[in-house]
Amino acid sequence: MAGALPHLHGRQTFLSFSKSHSSRLSSPASFRPVTVAMGQSQSYWASIDAKIEDHLKKSIPIRPPVEVFEPMQYLSLAPPRTAASALCVAACELVGGYRDDAVAAASAVHLMHAAAFGHEHLPLTDRARPKPAVHHQYNPNIELLTGDGILPFGLELLAKSVDPARDNSDRVLRVIVEITRAVGSQGTVDGQYREFLCTQSDGDELCNAGWVEYACEKKEGGLHACGAILGGGNEEEIERLRKYGLYVGTIQGMLHGVGRNKEGMKEAAEKLRALALKELDIFSSRKTEPIASLVQATLVNA
Amino acid sequence: MAGALPHLHGRQTFLSFSKSHSSRLSSPASFRPVTVAMGQSQSYWASIDAKIEDHLKKSIPIRPPVEVFEPMQYLSLAPPRTAASALCVAACELVGGYRDDAVAAASAVHLMHAAAFGHEHLPLTDRARPKPAVHHQYNPNIELLTGDGILPFGLELLAKSVDPARDNSDRVLRVIVEITRAVGSQGTVDGQYREFLCTQSDGDELCNAGWVEYACEKKEGGLHACGAILGGGNEEEIERLRKYGLYVGTIQGMLHGVGRNKEGMKEAAEKLRALALKELDIFSSRKTEPIASLVQATLVNA
Repeated sequence: MAGALPHLHGRQTFLSFSKSHSSRLSSPASFRPVTVAMGQSQSYWASIDAKIEDHLKKSIPIRPPVEVFEPMQYLSLAPPRTAASALCVAACELVGGYRDDAVAAASAVHLMHAAAFGHEHLPLTDRARPKPAVHHQYNPNIELLTGDGILPFGLELLAKSVDPARDNSDRVLRVIVEITRAVGSQGTVDGQYREFLCTQSDGDELCNAGWVEYACEKKEGGLHACGAILGGGNEEEIERLRKYGLYVGTIQGMLHGVGRNKEGMKEAAEKLRALALKELDIFSSRKTEPIASLVQATLVNA
Repeated sequence: MAGALPHLHGRQTFLSFSKSHSSRLSSPASFRPVTVAMGQSQSYWASIDAKIEDHLKKSIPIRPPVEVFEPMQYLSLAPPRTAASALCVAACELVGGYRDDAVAAASAVHLMHAAAFGHEHLPLTDRARPKPAVHHQYNPNIELLTGDGILPFGLELLAKSVDPARDNSDRVLRVIVEITRAVGSQGTVDGQYREFLCTQSDGDELCNAGWVEYACEKKEGGLHACGAILGGGNEEEIERLRKYGLYVGTIQGMLHGVGRNKEGMKEAAEKLRALALKELDIFSSRKTEPIASLVQATLVNA
């Protein structure tokens, strides 16, 4: 990724997969940057990103039938990246796991997000006020079906990462439960529905800070927790990092997602930030530096 | 299910979940009956159906937030049933497994179908010739999102069926790979895309018998294979029953799905039927009677 993102320096945006892909997204409003502090953390995240990107590109080659796999690769890589997939790898490493233990899950997490992103931007007949337009490379039918293909593919990728040599089948199954729950009707879909209600409502009464926080937690939070399981963390570590991930996702959503341009979000996020960092206090502070930067830099640049 | 389907007698239609649900589907064109022979096989399928229905109803209770779970239950149960979920249980039993070993997977298989069914019938702006209309209980946005919730929920249900007492985690993982592949871009989505091209084309040139067979196999076939894995079948049994399932799905699609009302389908299906039955010849014919009835009755009533 270092090569793919030579323009990253100082306090910069932690971009989605590559310049070439992210630039295809025509609207800045659709682009949700995950900002990181400069220095060490940045190269840490960049190296994780490179690993995930590499895994995804190898996993979704363009092959026959090209009319199916070309949009699949494009729509998998094009959506802006959230912190969720990178945090999956970082949490795994924090609890002592190897990077390779989490790359398939991190790729799956990104694919869940990509599928949801695509469906959110579909032009449906009852979407009176569509989300900020993104460039549609394909027609709606293809984008719908491709999203339908991306989601199960991500889970297939994860299920296939079981390796007898690592004896990881129970962990992978647990992560499948985590992820499917996080993207389903108790997670992302619930959040999307509430965001939809918000965007269709006339006043701001419905979309108060509490509502936005709930929607963000549902929509973004759940996907930020899986790495600690794969890295072999104990139950307390898993629970702490799950909660930390929930906060990260919620904060991201409040500042750059559902809550963007809404009043009071920065203050609300500041409170969550303190709670988030508290979850990390059982780990050595040296080790948590990169992970903690996710909520710190977010607020600096919000 | 015996109670739910008191109108079933003689050579009848093997209905979707219950009379009350299936009758909500307003268009007969959207209803794809799976016919079974009278007698023993019928009660066999009915008992499997009852088991799956029960599992689904318990797994998707209507609970808060009701605006999420009410459509989720409705849209999970309303779509017409295909043979895939029942065959999952029957194949498990054929290789010596217990019915309970396959019920979660069979429910997941039905949920994959329900999610795909919902998305197929969404009114998208570029669907110039929509599929035969079905009654839409909810607006498109809700039906889209609910489908997005149903698919991962089905996989969560399956992943959670792992039971240390049964030591079935490797089998469940293998089935997750089977199912996610079957519904993804190499399976259902590919088939849906080809069906879509067919419905949008003016002439019948594109939609010849070979094309329809391919589309049906992709769209319906893959989901018909998973029970043998869960039942502990050996590799040959698994492979035979996978192929048998592919034929069953393809035949169903040719007669009642993509290929319905097209010429030459009955003849093409007849050929596949012979191939399908050949796959069963390693099993005792007494035991395969119910399973074989899936392709026999289909043709009798086509």
